[in-house]
Amino acid sequence: MTDPKTLFAALFEPRRIALIGASADEKKTTSRPQRFLKKHGFRGEILPVNPGRSEVLGEKAYKNLDAIEGKIDHAYILLNGKDAVAALEACGRRGVTAASILAGGFADGGAAGASMQDDLSRIVRETGIRLVGPNSIGTVSTDPAVALTANAAFAIDTLRAGDWALVSQSGSLIGALLSRADARGIGFSRLISVGNEVDLAVGEIADLLVDDPKTRAIVLFMETLRDGDRLARAARRARAAGKPMVVYKLGRSDVGQELAKSHTGAIAGSDATFDAFCRRHGIARVSMFESLIDVPALLVDRPPAKGRRVAVATTTGGGAAMVVDNMAMAGLDIVGPPQALVDWLKPLGIAAGEGKLVDLTLAGAKPEIVSGTIERLLADNNNDAVIFVVGSSAQFNPELAVEPLLRFAGSEKPFAVSLTPAAEKSLALLTAAGVPAFRHPESCAEAMTLCLLNPAPRAEPKPEAPARAAIEALEAGRTSGFDERRAAALFAALGVPMAKALAVLDARRVASAVDEVGSPVALKILSADIAHKTEAGGVALGLPDGPSAAMAAREIEKRVKAHAPDARLDGFLVQKMERGLAEVILGFRRDPLVGPTVTVGLGGVLAEIYKDASTRIAPVDEAEALEMIGEVKGLATIRGYRNLPKGDVAALARAIAAFSMLAHSDFGEVSEAEINPLLVKREGEGVVAVDGLVVLKPQASRV
Amino acid sequence: MTDPKTLFAALFEPRRIALIGASADEKKTTSRPQRFLKKHGFRGEILPVNPGRSEVLGEKAYKNLDAIEGKIDHAYILLNGKDAVAALEACGRRGVTAASILAGGFADGGAAGASMQDDLSRIVRETGIRLVGPNSIGTVSTDPAVALTANAAFAIDTLRAGDWALVSQSGSLIGALLSRADARGIGFSRLISVGNEVDLAVGEIADLLVDDPKTRAIVLFMETLRDGDRLARAARRARAAGKPMVVYKLGRSDVGQELAKSHTGAIAGSDATFDAFCRRHGIARVSMFESLIDVPALLVDRPPAKGRRVAVATTTGGGAAMVVDNMAMAGLDIVGPPQALVDWLKPLGIAAGEGKLVDLTLAGAKPEIVSGTIERLLADNNNDAVIFVVGSSAQFNPELAVEPLLRFAGSEKPFAVSLTPAAEKSLALLTAAGVPAFRHPESCAEAMTLCLLNPAPRAEPKPEAPARAAIEALEAGRTSGFDERRAAALFAALGVPMAKALAVLDARRVASAVDEVGSPVALKILSADIAHKTEAGGVALGLPDGPSAAMAAREIEKRVKAHAPDARLDGFLVQKMERGLAEVILGFRRDPLVGPTVTVGLGGVLAEIYKDASTRIAPVDEAEALEMIGEVKGLATIRGYRNLPKGDVAALARAIAAFSMLAHSDFGEVSEAEINPLLVKREGEGVVAVDGLVVLKPQASRV
Repeated sequence: MTDPKTLFAALFEPRRIALIGASADEKKTTSRPQRFLKKHGFRGEILPVNPGRSEVLGEKAYKNLDAIEGKIDHAYILLNGKDAVAALEACGRRGVTAASILAGGFADGGAAGASMQDDLSRIVRETGIRLVGPNSIGTVSTDPAVALTANAAFAIDTLRAGDWALVSQSGSLIGALLSRADARGIGFSRLISVGNEVDLAVGEIADLLVDDPKTRAIVLFMETLRDGDRLARAARRARAAGKPMVVYKLGRSDVGQELAKSHTGAIAGSDATFDAFCRRHGIARVSMFESLIDVPALLVDRPPAKGRRVAVATTTGGGAAMVVDNMAMAGLDIVGPPQALVDWLKPLGIAAGEGKLVDLTLAGAKPEIVSGTIERLLADNNNDAVIFVVGSSAQFNPELAVEPLLRFAGSEKPFAVSLTPAAEKSLALLTAAGVPAFRHPESCAEAMTLCLLNPAPRAEPKPEAPARAAIEALEAGRTSGFDERRAAALFAALGVPMAKALAVLDARRVASAVDEVGSPVALKILSADIAHKTEAGGVALGLPDGPSAAMAAREIEKRVKAHAPDARLDGFLVQKMERGLAEVILGFRRDPLVGPTVTVGLGGVLAEIYKDASTRIAPVDEAEALEMIGEVKGLATIRGYRNLPKGDVAALARAIAAFSMLAHSDFGEVSEAEINPLLVKREGEGVVAVDGLVVLKPQASRV
Repeated sequence: MTDPKTLFAALFEPRRIALIGASADEKKTTSRPQRFLKKHGFRGEILPVNPGRSEVLGEKAYKNLDAIEGKIDHAYILLNGKDAVAALEACGRRGVTAASILAGGFADGGAAGASMQDDLSRIVRETGIRLVGPNSIGTVSTDPAVALTANAAFAIDTLRAGDWALVSQSGSLIGALLSRADARGIGFSRLISVGNEVDLAVGEIADLLVDDPKTRAIVLFMETLRDGDRLARAARRARAAGKPMVVYKLGRSDVGQELAKSHTGAIAGSDATFDAFCRRHGIARVSMFESLIDVPALLVDRPPAKGRRVAVATTTGGGAAMVVDNMAMAGLDIVGPPQALVDWLKPLGIAAGEGKLVDLTLAGAKPEIVSGTIERLLADNNNDAVIFVVGSSAQFNPELAVEPLLRFAGSEKPFAVSLTPAAEKSLALLTAAGVPAFRHPESCAEAMTLCLLNPAPRAEPKPEAPARAAIEALEAGRTSGFDERRAAALFAALGVPMAKALAVLDARRVASAVDEVGSPVALKILSADIAHKTEAGGVALGLPDGPSAAMAAREIEKRVKAHAPDARLDGFLVQKMERGLAEVILGFRRDPLVGPTVTVGLGGVLAEIYKDASTRIAPVDEAEALEMIGEVKGLATIRGYRNLPKGDVAALARAIAAFSMLAHSDFGEVSEAEINPLLVKREGEGVVAVDGLVVLKPQASRV
């Protein structure tokens, strides 16, 4: 396997590049890589491969790969379909370090394409060549300049160098982001279109970029997630290195998810799950496209924020109020000026004491007042970040307007500038000086929200070995199938309190079982042949004592036999009836993209309608479980709401953490599990689970 | 009173302008109006008033207003505080048609300022002069050019003329919007800063602009609402004239509302209430600042949409997917291509049949394919609007990229273009040609959502005279105070079914009352002296028959006497206990800004937590009430959810409409009312209200 350094060099700093299928016709897309390499000053060797020509656009051309002598760092394959497959095979055999394929029409183009894509996978496996694409519009570095791309956007005259690396699953979006960034004075260090990710995917490439000294932030445009584990690792390493990872991901709506799927031939995955992934690993997810280039500046080299309190000063009240309005909606606290600032402004004729906004008004639009104000706000312990909102002066006197702001570049506390008018020059001056600056109140608010509310990646809970009893319970379920009893046994072994229950073989033993579990009880028929017990008449609830339970058991038996004469009946489950202040649902799922997740929601039809749930990557510890409980709005009823009694939130958090241990690799066969309902009792009285199910992966349950 | 035509001319097309307090010092703000008027080619007379000079910036100056002969259309008062008040008084006496005051520090600056603002009101009342401000940064027309403003943004070299009028409560935002619009090739017809709106407010000015032949859309930046009735009238007239009214209003968050208040010294009002106002009167409210200038183009001269189905075609899949994702989240339906288009594209090698997006890919980035695609989409009856999303070509070959799009300007069906890269030239070309074009996927989605989901203003329900019984019930409540019984009588008279109930004077009559209303019953003590009956032990529920109710009555009497020995007891209310599938709350309020509103929400603590309610301007008819029911998520349970029984939604709509008749002017004294709960029974079984209250305006209840 190619080591990371060699791979990085082959991708981003190749010295000898083969262009397989390079065209001499400037109108053709396949002529672009060669033209763009030259245009932007590539200093290595370009080796066009074209069987029909001895020269292409002034470079000596080769009939085939074997005609080239020496090492080839990177081959860009510009052929289509089977020709591209053959070219990759040749590259692999020839020992080319890395190849990219421009053409689409593989997994993104129906069954025939998918089969060709399988061929690409096989070649990668067999030869060890590393592949970008297919469907990759190219890989670009700005320093040293390597514009190995067919993206029309690189017809741009000057390729601006910068500190941010862009990794995109959409090729055309590279051009869009390049132009948008350039228009506001921002450049990239690297840009790479990963296409269908047959081999190299976003995660591995991001991981390489963490170690790139020329990259200070990693920007991702994503449609799906193919190598979640590697991306998680990259995100954590990036965070540790002070390099923010900022992502825009399609698929926030159902239609968007569908599109992301059809567009790339991949599974898009549930959006809440991707949010959980970002949160767990410290990735900043933006919702505005423009934020992708606006947000990183505020997050670079930024330790985790201490709180969510923002102070805002301005010379334009209306402009600042827009920023404040958006931040407050996102959950930030807006705090007013310290007394020291109020006292300092007073003799200058500025009344900043009222309200939360420090409105200097036009009277305060003087450099020394602006910088003195910001200085005092940054020194105030009562806020965690400072924003200054500039008005019309930014448009007409850029130097004058931004001069008092530049000295706050690199401030220890987050500091951002929002520009109310269109003021491209001010924006560029601030950007060049390293002051995070924004041209939309919405993206400024989004950046500050991500800066203050995006927690550091949480340490993975220690992979404690599961209790022996839990492994045995899994074993039992695997052997005989997971019915309600065996699911309950597994949950109990993990540490989730389960309602007391006894299984009895026939109706005669029901009464004594009631004595043991305590009344009132619920009675349920046990039968592997009956999927829907209630519909079969196999359930009776609220039975007050042994005799009535015994009678109910006989009636159940009659009903079930009438309903399903051939079903094998295995007796009854006698379960203590429980009550709680709230009914909670716990869900566990091994997501194909992000891995194990745990979800907490309120039980009942209303909670389902409101989609009121919190999802995290599993396992979670009790602290994170408490955070989840805090995010379920409907659980306000047990967190202390008006005069309602408080529920045992601590016990609920313990149960969530215990349940989430299903994420442990020892339970790898469990694909899904659910506890519904889990009853939360009064504070100090615990929680108790009443019903649950465990679903094994198909191959596992077939054992 | 000045007639509208004269007023309009004085504001936007004045020929003789006095500048009271004009400065010759170019560094001073008070020199700007004169400089900007000249700079942008004002052809009328400028009359500076400055007691210390005979000439100001090359114009003859006057010692005072009386030194000027002849009619003065507009006086811009550039003095502060009491001097400004005196100047307005002089203008009023002199017969100046309209005046503007630049200075702030009136109601926006504490008690002393508020008192001066009262003086301004008095002068307006007494002299009939019309006033813009105080705190007005100016009033501008572009054709003929009248840059009567002190806003630094008008230092711009060329003032671009355009079709949209901007009315702003924030002066500084005028400059910001001017620069942002100019940067993308959009100009304004008029721009006016209304300041504190002592006299002329947004509504009246917007109403004038509806009749302005040079204005095709009215754009509002608002912090509060001071003349709701006039704005409502203006919005309806604007809509009828095909001139969209587009508004950005601060105060979506609580902090933002607070800010809007402190910033302007006005009440901001509840945000949901303002949304209801916009919806009722057909105003398009945007959430992104940039949308204010982006959105109008799509709405100009646009009849109400027929549906919410959008077809999207593109050459850049990722860019289009962003637009789609945002539209789908906002509730639009995305529809795929018609078969005719699929068939047409197939021989061109483009497979557009799969998925909802027509992705032409790079292969389809040819003028005739793009225009052929759009043509076929516009002709398709299966969509209500079409969007084309342009990729990199817009950046490098603007003419080529936009050429096939220009012919769809003015299409009967809404058609918009979204640009994925930064492509200012393409944007300007499209804008100039009249094709609505967007540079952010979010604002494109917002515009299309407003275009398709913003209904035409609903016809005001006919002001049916209330039933005589309702007037009598109001009368009774006004005379004796509105206790539960009297509130119930009013609601019943309006047509809301109330739970059967009887008031009895003492415990001995309870049993026979039970026979009459039907059991089970609820029993409540009647006493004007006891505010919280439950806490006083004055309520008993679920009493199965007459004897048990009589016994409960005696116990209640004991408990209440122990709890409140001095309270006068007026007997008992015996009320039939009712059950329903859902509990609904109805609220009525006369909002100080937008007038009467009606709110429907789900009862119970969860609904309160989820803030799940729908608000409209009252009264509403049954059709609108049905819309409201559809907006309350939690009422899904009675609209037909899974296997839950359906509730009597029609009866609920009738009850909402009946209740909302409190908006009638005959009930003007009612400031608030609530029915809680209103029980919704099974389909066909109706609704029944159990409890309610009516609050009169202070002066009314004191009668």
